Amino acid sequence: MDFSSKLLENAVNEMSQLPGIGKRTALRLVLHILKQPERQTEDLSNALMKLRNSVQFCKKCHNISDTELCEICSNPKRDASLVCVVEDIRDVMAIENTGQYRGLYHVLGGKISPIEGMGPQDLTISSLVHKVKQGEVKELILALSSTMEGDTTNFYIFKQLEGTGVKTSTIARGIAVGDELEYADEVTLGRSILNRVPFEGSFNNN
Amino acid sequence: MDFSSKLLENAVNEMSQLPGIGKRTALRLVLHILKQPERQTEDLSNALMKLRNSVQFCKKCHNISDTELCEICSNPKRDASLVCVVEDIRDVMAIENTGQYRGLYHVLGGKISPIEGMGPQDLTISSLVHKVKQGEVKELILALSSTMEGDTTNFYIFKQLEGTGVKTSTIARGIAVGDELEYADEVTLGRSILNRVPFEGSFNNN
Repeated sequence: MDFSSKLLENAVNEMSQLPGIGKRTALRLVLHILKQPERQTEDLSNALMKLRNSVQFCKKCHNISDTELCEICSNPKRDASLVCVVEDIRDVMAIENTGQYRGLYHVLGGKISPIEGMGPQDLTISSLVHKVKQGEVKELILALSSTMEGDTTNFYIFKQLEGTGVKTSTIARGIAVGDELEYADEVTLGRSILNRVPFEGSFNNN
Repeated sequence: MDFSSKLLENAVNEMSQLPGIGKRTALRLVLHILKQPERQTEDLSNALMKLRNSVQFCKKCHNISDTELCEICSNPKRDASLVCVVEDIRDVMAIENTGQYRGLYHVLGGKISPIEGMGPQDLTISSLVHKVKQGEVKELILALSSTMEGDTTNFYIFKQLEGTGVKTSTIARGIAVGDELEYADEVTLGRSILNRVPFEGSFNNN
């Protein structure tokens, strides 16, 4: 792309560094910004810079937080003996939205993925092991996505915790509520039959 | 969405002001930014602010430019008697990419669209009329998109220029090169038959 302005070209190039945003989309976004009041560009720039410079991670669960200890970890009504291990803040938000979970979280910051160069040392696994060894945690719920990387990470954590006596579980896999059986994939349907629950028990969470 | 951090929430809210970017996409983009080196966030913020604060528009064609007169308008090899009227800089870039056009441009900055609150006074139409009345322009090519708004704008410009004696044309509409007839829409196919060109003449541009 040949731009008539270096300033425009720079802005488009920087914008197109974002994932899923190509040069054309970046140009559309930048031209939109140019049509808006200057105030909006300032707000966007400042919000990004402030976040990048002042972002903190909760020292206990490693979630993004504005304080040293996040709201969930510092809430005395939360059950500190139950810890749910997730990949990132989006999973915390998703689980919080269900309103079904009263324990704490542990944010790994990713999954073990040799292809993306993510090893166990890039995640907060050692902090998790340390937390478990201190004895407060009774049950660990592994809630990573069920991909090759997620399974690898689950297994690695499981191995690291051997001998600590902590109870480890994973979230249930099965047919989504409201889904029709005929459209479910075989693996999910197979697992949901193997891991069937007593009929009375299936209402527990509602 | 409930965020664990006000800084994160602000950044996501500002990001989701951009067109086509919802809250979820904004969160994905912001979390990506957080994982990149600080330098990258600075570069993005600075590029946007610099563009917004220092952007200039060519005083002749109103295209985005770093100088008072853009590269195209100040190029003596360009034919100043031929002016192509387009909507925005993306159209200029598209036409420049063809390598077929040696005239100048006039960037309107949009189309007449009552629904979006865009009237003739929001566009650079009066500047175009002024330019034509000064006499240097011999032919005007109207290259707006062929929508209701584009047609309205074309007609408005045509009316404004009545009596100036300038030759006005629109770009040819027809079947795209490489397209198959059976998949073309009726309006386009109809126009391409009505506006057929002599067989010898069809090679002129190659």
